[in-house]
Formats: sequence, C-alpha cells, structure tokens
Amino acid sequence: MDPNPNIHRQYRSFVTHLECSLTGERYEADRVHGLSRAGRPLLVRYDLEAMRGAVPRIAIQGRPTDMWRWRELLPVRDPKHIVSLGEIETPLVPIPRSGGTHVLVKDEGRLPTGSFKARGLVMAVSMARALGITRIAMPTNGNAGAALAAYASRCGIETIIFCPDDTPEINVREIAMQGARVWRVNGLIDDCGAIVGEGARQGRWFDFSTLKEPYRIEGKKTMGLELAAQLGWELPDAIFYPTGGGTGLIGMWKAFAELEALGWIGSKRPKMFAVQAAGCAPMVRAFEDGVEHAERWENAHTVAAGIRVPRAVGDFLILRAVRESGGRALAVEDNAILKAVDDTAKRDGLLMCPEGGATLAAYRNALAQGLVSEDDRIILFNCSTGLKYPMPEAPLWLDRTQPIDFDAL
Amino acid sequence: MDPNPNIHRQYRSFVTHLECSLTGERYEADRVHGLSRAGRPLLVRYDLEAMRGAVPRIAIQGRPTDMWRWRELLPVRDPKHIVSLGEIETPLVPIPRSGGTHVLVKDEGRLPTGSFKARGLVMAVSMARALGITRIAMPTNGNAGAALAAYASRCGIETIIFCPDDTPEINVREIAMQGARVWRVNGLIDDCGAIVGEGARQGRWFDFSTLKEPYRIEGKKTMGLELAAQLGWELPDAIFYPTGGGTGLIGMWKAFAELEALGWIGSKRPKMFAVQAAGCAPMVRAFEDGVEHAERWENAHTVAAGIRVPRAVGDFLILRAVRESGGRALAVEDNAILKAVDDTAKRDGLLMCPEGGATLAAYRNALAQGLVSEDDRIILFNCSTGLKYPMPEAPLWLDRTQPIDFDAL
Repeated sequence: MDPNPNIHRQYRSFVTHLECSLTGERYEADRVHGLSRAGRPLLVRYDLEAMRGAVPRIAIQGRPTDMWRWRELLPVRDPKHIVSLGEIETPLVPIPRSGGTHVLVKDEGRLPTGSFKARGLVMAVSMARALGITRIAMPTNGNAGAALAAYASRCGIETIIFCPDDTPEINVREIAMQGARVWRVNGLIDDCGAIVGEGARQGRWFDFSTLKEPYRIEGKKTMGLELAAQLGWELPDAIFYPTGGGTGLIGMWKAFAELEALGWIGSKRPKMFAVQAAGCAPMVRAFEDGVEHAERWENAHTVAAGIRVPRAVGDFLILRAVRESGGRALAVEDNAILKAVDDTAKRDGLLMCPEGGATLAAYRNALAQGLVSEDDRIILFNCSTGLKYPMPEAPLWLDRTQPIDFDAL
Repeated sequence: MDPNPNIHRQYRSFVTHLECSLTGERYEADRVHGLSRAGRPLLVRYDLEAMRGAVPRIAIQGRPTDMWRWRELLPVRDPKHIVSLGEIETPLVPIPRSGGTHVLVKDEGRLPTGSFKARGLVMAVSMARALGITRIAMPTNGNAGAALAAYASRCGIETIIFCPDDTPEINVREIAMQGARVWRVNGLIDDCGAIVGEGARQGRWFDFSTLKEPYRIEGKKTMGLELAAQLGWELPDAIFYPTGGGTGLIGMWKAFAELEALGWIGSKRPKMFAVQAAGCAPMVRAFEDGVEHAERWENAHTVAAGIRVPRAVGDFLILRAVRESGGRALAVEDNAILKAVDDTAKRDGLLMCPEGGATLAAYRNALAQGLVSEDDRIILFNCSTGLKYPMPEAPLWLDRTQPIDFDAL
C-alpha cells in the first residue's frame, strides 16, 4: 500500500544517455557506470525537446510535492524500482532575526535519515536496484552512509561503509542500526575512499563514492527543481551552499539548465556561493587562484565534518558553476559557524547543523563585503537536522523535595 | 519573505467559542483560558454549518499541504500571529517487511524540532502570541519542551521548562539551545507539572501543560485532518497511537467529527488503539476496568519516556474515543518495543522512536489476538525522529596503515 501516485503511477522518464562531464563522450543509459574513461563524473542527459512538447509545467504542479513528482526528469524508468522512505519537498523557513527579511533556509533535515544525502542516495539505490547491483560500499563523513544504509537495507542490498574514526558516534550508530556494516578508519574521507576503490577494483562491491556513480547527482538536482517550483518559477538572487563533494551545487546548476531548456524558467540564475570551512577550503583556494582543478587540502580540520572533504572529483564542475553564476567560493571560520548555529536556534528557533551554520556565516560575510545586498532574495541550505551534532550542556537542576524559590526560576 | 500562501493569506477562521469537555459549559473564543471551571480541558468549537456552505473540500486540496492549509478549522484568526517553522504534511511510509502490506507509518519525526509536539505547540504559541502572553512554563518528558522553546523563542516569548532528571541529555540540551531555561527535577512529569501549576497560581507564568490550555489539541487534530486528505477522504481501518497525555488521539477523534459535519468524510471511523507501555499503563487498566477515569500509575517506568505519563487530565476523553471507535487500550513490554524499533530500522530502513516502536509492537499483538486482520489498512504513528534516542554501539574498527584483509570486511 503506497498512497502516493507519484510513485505508483507509470510516468515516462525522458532519459536518453549519459556523457562524460569533461570530454562529452557518450555512454548508454540503463547500464551500470562508474566514472568516465577520462576518470571524470558522468552526467545523465534527457530529451528535453521531446519533454517540452509532452509535459507542461502545470502537470507537475498538480502532483503531490515530494521529489518523485519530477519523474520525467529522473533516470528511474519503472516505479517498481523506487525505494522510497517519503522524500518530501523540504520547507523554506524564514530566519528574520538571525538572517534577515529576505533570507530563507531550505531545511533539508526533514528528509529521511535527517539529511539531504537522502536525495542522492534514494536515486542511486533505486538505480542500483533497477540494474541488479547487490553489494555496495561507500566512504562517508556520516550522513551519506546513513542514507545509503537505510535505502539499501529497505530493498535487500548489502552495504559496507567506511568512515573517519572521529565521525560522530550518532552517525556511526545510525548506520549500523539501519543494517549496514560500518568500519571506522584511522584517516579522512578520501582515505576511506581509497579502500572502497581498491575493493571495487577487486570486484567485491560497487563504489558509491560521491560522483563516482552517476545517479546521486540526479537526486540532488531535485533541490534546484524544488526551489524553482517553491518560488513561483523565479530563482532567488543568491544561493549559499555548504560544499564538500559539491554534488548538490553541481546538481542544482544542472537542474536550472534543464528547467530553462523546458521553458519552465527564464535565463535568470542565482549567484552560487560555495561555502567551505577555513580549515578545509580547496575550492576557495582554486577559485581565488583562477584554476580549473583544486589540489588536495592538507591537514583538513573543521567542526563542520560534512564539508571536511580535502579533494573533490567534481572540482572543475563546482568551480565552473560558481564562476558562470557570478558567485564566489567563500571560507568561514569555525567560531563564526558555531555562532551562526547558536543565533539561529536562539533567535529563530531553528536548530541547524554546522554546515548549515556555515552558510549563514558566509552570507553575513558576503553582506559585509557587498557581494550581496539586504534586498536580495537569499537561500541558505541547512543540509541536516541539527539534532545529530554536539550541543552545550544545560546544567540547571531543581530539588523538588525542598522549598522552591520561584523568583530564581 | 514567506513564500507559503497558507500563511500570508487571510482565511476566515470559523471558530465560535470553547466548551468544557465534561459539562459543555460555554467559554468565549479569543481569550486566555486554562482548564474549565470543572477542572477539565476546554474544546474549541467552530461554525461547521456555515463553513460547509462557504468552503468546499476542493479549496483545501488546491493549497500547499502543510498544516496551515486547514486555517478555517483552526483557532488563529490573523496570519500575522502564526509562528511557523515549516509544519509540513508528514509522509506515510510503508513498512512491508517489518509491519505488513497494508501498514503505513505516519512519520511525525519530520516536523520542526523532530516530533509531533510541534503541531500542538505551534498552535498554542501562535494563540499565546495573539493573546499577548509573554511568559510560559511547561513540564515535559523532552519533545514538547523542545517544540515550545523553538516557537516561543522565535516570537520573543520567555519560556521556563521543567523535566524529569532522567530526561535524555539531547532533549535537555536542545531545549536550552533553542533559548528556554530548562530545569531538571528529581521526579516524574506530573511532579514537574505541580511546580508549573504552583507558579501559574502565583501569576508568574502561563501554564502550558498538556490539555491545560485549549489550543495544543487543535494543532494535534491536524494529524486526523491530514490522514483523511492523504488517504483520499476515506479513513483507515485502525490507528495505533502512542498514548501519554493523549492529546493527539483526542484531537484526531475531534477532527473526524468535524470532517463528517462538513460532509468531507462519511461515518466510517478507524478503530483507535491507545498504545501504552506495560510499565505505565493507566489507560489500559481503566479501559479493562470499564471505568471513565484512570487512577495514577505508581512506579512508572519504560524505555519509551514520551508515554511515561502516570496521570492524564484528558483520561475520560481518551477512553471515550477508544470505546466509541471499537478499539482498545493496549500495553506492550519494553523488549517488544525495542525489537520493533530494531526490525523497522534494519528491514525497512526507517529509524523510529521507542514510542513509534510501541505502536508496531501493539499492532503485532493485536494481529495475533485477532483484533485486526492482515487486510486491514493500518496507520502507526511514529511521533519523533529516532535520532534522539540511544542506539547500540557499532564497534568495527579498521587500521588502514596495515594490509587490509578484504575478505573480512
């Protein structure tokens, strides 16, 4: 029993093929793929011309708002392969006191497993199921592993996860709780990725690393599709996005191009701000150096573990989108991140994750530097529920067996 | 900037008055109220006859699906008083492997602050704001306090929270993080409630205890409204609801009556199963004894802290709804609760809270006893994200500096 028509109806996917993001070389759709022969991410392509004639925007608007309303623009062809846990459209929450009058937080913590990783992984796992993959491995800083574990367990795919040994306890436990084997490794996420890569070369499992399989980005692009629909098909002036592997930023940029090709939005684009932590800012360095590829960031450290990604395989795609948009790559200090999280919780009642806090900190800097104005319509991405992260102690204690001094409460 | 027309438009509330749930005595709307003169909860009443003529069901269906689409059936008159954090319609998630083919979990963990308490508190705080209340106190087992803190801080209302001293650390911290003063008290929730009551008598604050102010139930009733809309205006065969104070169960029962009076649903009602823990089951005992009021449960204990409520002021309303529906009050053991949580996480990828697990455990018992059948359409309520609760350790550790035995991974 699934009451959601977006999932149980047959809609046509307009997918045609995949292509190498660097060389444009063409690859067949509906096949198992990793990186391209050039060692770069593959991008899924659609027959947007045919779709433009066949699917009016209003048809999408009439459907329930979860991410499966975009079925024609997604690679899963048969609804029986969809492994859903309820991927709702995430709300836009104003933060007038800590942000400003025109600042909205897209609260991705409402998705299954509490983070935006669900978008990418529900798509990748649904495609893995469609393509008969039975064993998957992945490196993770926490949230991606949790999403993979949940969706894979739901459809009986075996999962092995590798995470840095300082990954928060709650992430490691939720991954195990949701049926995956999870290994703590003495290293960072790219060290974990090396183990996954070696096992994949040995044919032991399929490699689900960021952008090393082509479907996660299609899930993540729904953030851009949703934003367009939620804002009445007019994109905001700027988007601040916490950038580790950058799948979401690349995905949104792709989504906007697809929507324009369909004639559903105009040519206006938001300035894309790729937000990183000062202790791990390879994209910021590459952006400022004016280069196309980023070098590995050594001795990476930040409270925002989700963006502690020293090297990103899609670096040139991130940099390209940021530059084309007229945006920037911005680095923020850990103390500014923590202050932003605290302000938003205390003044607007919204508990963000550190990576979400980083986007507010970056917005504040951008405003001070004149990169955006107070009248601009701004979207910040809170990529995970704040409940997964450490919070300060709350020490007040009251002995009810003694007389109570109500003035002191 | 709020892009949600449900919130920024003017819709007419059809509220007319309040009445005592025991005596029917009438009270004025748009006033500050606590319990009735008879010491019982007040219920909000609407001019359903007038609304039936003025608002067709299809008007609601055309709006965004969050809880503010039901504005005509809610007590807030002026949108400027709405204190929203994005109260989305929560998804219905099938759990075919751990539950059954016709079992759906309404996943309330997706609401702001991660629990269904947001529904009640967003309404109560919005009304408090409309009525000029500036200081609120509340006893809580955790989630209600977190929701109150978030909404009250968002609109500048001061909040003082009292919780049992064994309330999970994460709850106490999130309450403080969201700007409330939170006191741990050596006692249970009704002991905390006594302190709140005493302070209210002294005029120090407004008492926000369950059912002691009349608007939380109006927020909770949206669970029933949503279910009707999500299931195509035909209610399910049975609802399993984790029952502490019981606001949600009473609220849904009220919602169904209102929907029928509007002609939006027929007379069919689900069997309502009030689920309690074996270590704190005052409603089960009262149900089985055939009495209208429940005595306090002594030495209450259960892993499901949210339903560790020894005494409920709305006991007779809970028992009445359960009996009228042909349902039951059911108690489940802690080990069955934990097994249900584990099964659903591992087999269906859905991490529930213990109270959510209790509903699956109760469903399993009800099925075994023949109280429901496998063909019945069943709704279980997962009232909070499972991320707030303890999970078992995940001990696997891998040294990447040594040769890796891939066969062992």
